[in-house]
Amino acid sequence: MSEANVVTSPVSLTAEDRPGRPPVTPELEHLYRGFEQELLVPLWTEIGDLMPEHPRSAAQPHMWEWRRLLDLAARAGDLVPVGRGGERRAIALANPSLGGRPYATPTLWAAIQYLMPGEDAPEHRHTQNAFRFVVEGEGVWTVVERDPVPMGRGDFLPQPGMHWHAHHNAAKQPMAWLDGLDIPFQYGIEAQFFDFGRDALGEEEHAGPALSRSQRLWGHPGLAPVSQIGHREGTPLLCYRWVDTDAALTAQLELERAGHAGTVEPGHALVRYTNPTHAGDVLATIRAQFHRITAGTETTPYRETGSSVYQVFDGSGRITVGERSWSVTRGDLFVVLSWQPLSIRSEASASDSDSGALDLFQFSDAPILTKLNLFRSRTEKDNR
Amino acid sequence: MSEANVVTSPVSLTAEDRPGRPPVTPELEHLYRGFEQELLVPLWTEIGDLMPEHPRSAAQPHMWEWRRLLDLAARAGDLVPVGRGGERRAIALANPSLGGRPYATPTLWAAIQYLMPGEDAPEHRHTQNAFRFVVEGEGVWTVVERDPVPMGRGDFLPQPGMHWHAHHNAAKQPMAWLDGLDIPFQYGIEAQFFDFGRDALGEEEHAGPALSRSQRLWGHPGLAPVSQIGHREGTPLLCYRWVDTDAALTAQLELERAGHAGTVEPGHALVRYTNPTHAGDVLATIRAQFHRITAGTETTPYRETGSSVYQVFDGSGRITVGERSWSVTRGDLFVVLSWQPLSIRSEASASDSDSGALDLFQFSDAPILTKLNLFRSRTEKDNR
Amino acid sequence: MSEANVVTSPVSLTAEDRPGRPPVTPELEHLYRGFEQELLVPLWTEIGDLMPEHPRSAAQPHMWEWRRLLDLAARAGDLVPVGRGGERRAIALANPSLGGRPYATPTLWAAIQYLMPGEDAPEHRHTQNAFRFVVEGEGVWTVVERDPVPMGRGDFLPQPGMHWHAHHNAAKQPMAWLDGLDIPFQYGIEAQFFDFGRDALGEEEHAGPALSRSQRLWGHPGLAPVSQIGHREGTPLLCYRWVDTDAALTAQLELERAGHAGTVEPGHALVRYTNPTHAGDVLATIRAQFHRITAGTETTPYRETGSSVYQVFDGSGRITVGERSWSVTRGDLFVVLSWQPLSIRSEASASDSDSGALDLFQFSDAPILTKLNLFRSRTEKDNR
Amino acid sequence: MSEANVVTSPVSLTAEDRPGRPPVTPELEHLYRGFEQELLVPLWTEIGDLMPEHPRSAAQPHMWEWRRLLDLAARAGDLVPVGRGGERRAIALANPSLGGRPYATPTLWAAIQYLMPGEDAPEHRHTQNAFRFVVEGEGVWTVVERDPVPMGRGDFLPQPGMHWHAHHNAAKQPMAWLDGLDIPFQYGIEAQFFDFGRDALGEEEHAGPALSRSQRLWGHPGLAPVSQIGHREGTPLLCYRWVDTDAALTAQLELERAGHAGTVEPGHALVRYTNPTHAGDVLATIRAQFHRITAGTETTPYRETGSSVYQVFDGSGRITVGERSWSVTRGDLFVVLSWQPLSIRSEASASDSDSGALDLFQFSDAPILTKLNLFRSRTEKDNR
Repeated sequence: MSEANVVTSPVSLTAEDRPGRPPVTPELEHLYRGFEQELLVPLWTEIGDLMPEHPRSAAQPHMWEWRRLLDLAARAGDLVPVGRGGERRAIALANPSLGGRPYATPTLWAAIQYLMPGEDAPEHRHTQNAFRFVVEGEGVWTVVERDPVPMGRGDFLPQPGMHWHAHHNAAKQPMAWLDGLDIPFQYGIEAQFFDFGRDALGEEEHAGPALSRSQRLWGHPGLAPVSQIGHREGTPLLCYRWVDTDAALTAQLELERAGHAGTVEPGHALVRYTNPTHAGDVLATIRAQFHRITAGTETTPYRETGSSVYQVFDGSGRITVGERSWSVTRGDLFVVLSWQPLSIRSEASASDSDSGALDLFQFSDAPILTKLNLFRSRTEKDNR
Repeated sequence: MSEANVVTSPVSLTAEDRPGRPPVTPELEHLYRGFEQELLVPLWTEIGDLMPEHPRSAAQPHMWEWRRLLDLAARAGDLVPVGRGGERRAIALANPSLGGRPYATPTLWAAIQYLMPGEDAPEHRHTQNAFRFVVEGEGVWTVVERDPVPMGRGDFLPQPGMHWHAHHNAAKQPMAWLDGLDIPFQYGIEAQFFDFGRDALGEEEHAGPALSRSQRLWGHPGLAPVSQIGHREGTPLLCYRWVDTDAALTAQLELERAGHAGTVEPGHALVRYTNPTHAGDVLATIRAQFHRITAGTETTPYRETGSSVYQVFDGSGRITVGERSWSVTRGDLFVVLSWQPLSIRSEASASDSDSGALDLFQFSDAPILTKLNLFRSRTEKDNR
Repeated sequence: MSEANVVTSPVSLTAEDRPGRPPVTPELEHLYRGFEQELLVPLWTEIGDLMPEHPRSAAQPHMWEWRRLLDLAARAGDLVPVGRGGERRAIALANPSLGGRPYATPTLWAAIQYLMPGEDAPEHRHTQNAFRFVVEGEGVWTVVERDPVPMGRGDFLPQPGMHWHAHHNAAKQPMAWLDGLDIPFQYGIEAQFFDFGRDALGEEEHAGPALSRSQRLWGHPGLAPVSQIGHREGTPLLCYRWVDTDAALTAQLELERAGHAGTVEPGHALVRYTNPTHAGDVLATIRAQFHRITAGTETTPYRETGSSVYQVFDGSGRITVGERSWSVTRGDLFVVLSWQPLSIRSEASASDSDSGALDLFQFSDAPILTKLNLFRSRTEKDNR
Repeated sequence: MSEANVVTSPVSLTAEDRPGRPPVTPELEHLYRGFEQELLVPLWTEIGDLMPEHPRSAAQPHMWEWRRLLDLAARAGDLVPVGRGGERRAIALANPSLGGRPYATPTLWAAIQYLMPGEDAPEHRHTQNAFRFVVEGEGVWTVVERDPVPMGRGDFLPQPGMHWHAHHNAAKQPMAWLDGLDIPFQYGIEAQFFDFGRDALGEEEHAGPALSRSQRLWGHPGLAPVSQIGHREGTPLLCYRWVDTDAALTAQLELERAGHAGTVEPGHALVRYTNPTHAGDVLATIRAQFHRITAGTETTPYRETGSSVYQVFDGSGRITVGERSWSVTRGDLFVVLSWQPLSIRSEASASDSDSGALDLFQFSDAPILTKLNLFRSRTEKDNR
């Protein structure tokens, strides 16, 4: 049976005599050969890796500097056209311990996308859930189900699975932004569908009004348009604007200063993007949040199951993930893996904005873990 | 068994010989007497009333003029103090066919509440779900769980069951508003609890900031404060401000004019107030909505199970409920009962606002029917 | 405005000078007259009744003896035909304090239904949720959506709203059973629809197999027929057979004797009938449960919001509801109202079954209160 | 940055000039080197693999013969002790295309577990959801949260995550069974926790009564023990007995023969194991079902997203998955991957049971896909 050839021998793993592993006698060696031939692997040689006492990620925490990404993306803007087939000029973070796969974490994709003036990224749709987050620039319209959504600094644009979408740069300069998707997760569970859309956008889609139709219908706090209730599975709100996010963060810190509840810990404001039709996470597989940490604050080490990608939106600081630590500034991206403790210190520098706060966008795979009863979290002061 | 005395004889109902009712022979008369003595009633004499082919309300559609209510409320302001025991200077609509009970409909309470300058309505809490809606005026603070919430024209303030609340008039003139509750419903199912609160509000509660803490935490579209997720059963957003409601209605009509989806029918914008923690109805038993009907529009007759109370917020028009019809203007209140067809015609008058639209606030018992699988609706063009 | 005439004067209620009620001066008397004319009622005279500190039921606890009901039902069997229009030979419990209405409690209908040999109760459907419970006899088939379901002692047959149903007595003797419905509740919220069905059942529906199709599909613990998943709103299991209920109760008491969890308190086994498609209550508005109380056991006083009807299935005992108390035996029915403390003492008598346990069937409106966040319960040892 | 070394060069993939991939000029080659150094990968070279038009599994359909597995397991019974560290004498199916990992499919683990007379598999708990299915034999007790559950042919024993469990063979002969878990899935999302339990079981746990406590509480159709409602997250029913599964399948085929609904297609009965506290899938990540296919029946090709493992319980037949096909008999195991069409033909042989039906147990990862809005299915006659 030639298929057996692709099976890596499990015996190499059993050479060491770990607790629970019997010594490899000739008889046992013979048995292991039998396993191999029948495409079988014993649990007792694998259990330490497969069923650890707590999550030990195959990936590594890592930081990518935004300026280097942007330089490379700009060169790609000159060299690589955007069109059908390649679909997007997107360049993905590849975690240093995931074998060169374009996976920021075991479940999440994070990429810088770059569009030249006048360019279109063609329309398609796919089961992968996606979003855009804009750390700088403006002038691109993302067209979702034929609704043009303008993108500006600080805006968060979710893209639920199987929604048609395209991008158009209506400005005179290139624009870059962060794309987040659940590509690695869906690759692992093999659930992907993908369809090509129209080859060209309509004229009116090349530059829409200041607000998308979705925002005009759903962008009012606590108010649902009755004609639209029940029409869509994914979030119908296609842009969460910076003006709202900023106001929500500011309010939490003001309340804290006045002695009221609001922040998650002193000096640490946190908002979560939610789907206004069910108030749960904004995408079926992705949680998105925004942190503001006041100058001088250091957050309590916190860990949770599942992985996250962070992007610095404003300010400067020092990030510590377990044994690793980096200084970060605007646009820098870093990843935190399952059950790794994260602490963030806000370190205002002369070049930062007036407030000196450190603002960070975060996305994670928490909805997957939550829906499957696998989410756990702990802060250092907790006793789990 | 003396208890039998309170039983109204069912025999009078059987005197007529309706289909399904046997002729009342002496033997049957004797049997009916036996039923009475044992506190029994046969189905066959009652079924037509108890189990009708479709809802036939015991209540009547009716309209109350706001100016008359306001006059009487103002006189009550002079004559009746507000304090512990009476609790509120609230005057309720009594449906003309519900035996003088203070029930606007079989399930809903609607009252004008009136507070003189400097007055406090004392703190209490109860299982009844409640809200305030402000058709005119400002200067009162409703204090909910010690969070002072300012009230102004067009604001909607929900009050989930068992939340402590009080009111304070910090202005130089009296203020009146609409109170809506599920008092008749809870009276019918006998689920009520009521507790008295503090006798006096704290100083800082007598006039708070321009926005309540609840609004500063929850009043941002699609954004949840992470520190507050999961903390409250009822809606944590305690004021839905007019500026947002107005913008949402305006946007629906603009989208309609541009050829896009948004309104529920041509010229008819409609928003629903929702709880931002689950996106369902704003109160466990009460649905609240706001309609804007453009000048000259007449809505398609529509009916649903359960009952509603409407208040005209702005503009003028003509309301038709089955055989009944009234002209209405700002502040006027009317009720629509179960399965009665309602049509609204917007009739701009010289004195109306620029737009000439008819704006109406509505509340109903729809969440009760929905959660119990009893909600049905029909517009005339539908085939149910 | 002649409608005002039907308004009962609220002034009589204010004659006494209760806390919170202002003394009735001539000016106030004049104001109250104004309220009456405008169909208004002030809160301050009504609040004590409308918003009590805890539920105080308008209804009374009461007990009906089964033998007396059965005698009257048998006489009705001779005198009153069953047919279209009257629909059912059902005789309802009328609570002594509910004005002679056929309401066992403010929300629940309970009746003895009686069918002579060979008779058919015609097919119809309605929004009211219903069930049958059989305290004695056999030989009737209830035909639900054309599925004939045989009825025997101890069987519980739920009837979700808008399911077609009819009854046929295929035996040589009359049969009586308990009908429970939410008629008073739906009358109060005015949500009722009713349709007449076929005038005659098909031949094969007059006596079906020993088990209904519904039982053969859904009557296996923890197993769902994949072809039927998602097909029905109401419970697809149309008979909960005595053999299963008895086994479940027996097992709880055996586990208790072996020192394990199982009973709700010592000597008190309790099972709840659930809808196998969502595991919640068996009907949208009605909870149904079965109690077994071992000989000599007295249950801890327990109260909950909402009302219940109980029927003794086997054994004898003493029931205490607040100040009231009755001795009961097989078939006897009693009602417990909102927030009234209930205690049950099992008193084996010579004529009882071997075990000497007291078996009681119970149904209540708990799903209504639960879904609307209004359910509360307390046992005496609790501090609410 | 030495970490870059572990990145596999993406350039090899771009050598071919596929649509959407620009020709690799020296400038582009230089850019790709830059990507590598910064741990980046472009989308345009990867999109065909990462975002296929429909699922194309990395794994292969494959069949394992039970007799060969059993022989190897018996030899392991002689050579490999069971104890702390190795934990279980379990031998896992390794899909021929998954690099020798002990993964039956990308998300599912399937193993034969083997226990010698008198042996104990030590107590532990873990986040991985698990179950046992017994194709032959008896005499082992699985002890879950100290409740001993006897195992017999046809029984299905779910094991929700983080429940303590151990096994004991109380019989005089070895026993083997199928273990199913979500180990590969949890390995991928890195959510695993594992704890060691007691070193020895209590005496009374070494052989319990004929029914577990869990079955005595929860094994009654449609009946919930009130004392246990709300106590457990995972299914409280720890054994789904063969007698019930067999009866449910038999009933579906009887109903089909009588002209009624019941089977999923002619000659194909199908039941799903459900959690009696919410009626959804029996485990948070695993769906388990049982098929009975009458002699001579061939099922319509069917495909769904996600993967399944099947075990033949009785009878013989021919399995076709896409281009692959195998003859199978009792105990044989095979896997079907995402979106692969499966057809099953029941081929009675002389040695089969009287009925000649082909009985198959199936488990899959469908709950994961369903909860994340990624589940799709299609039968050949469908138009998706």
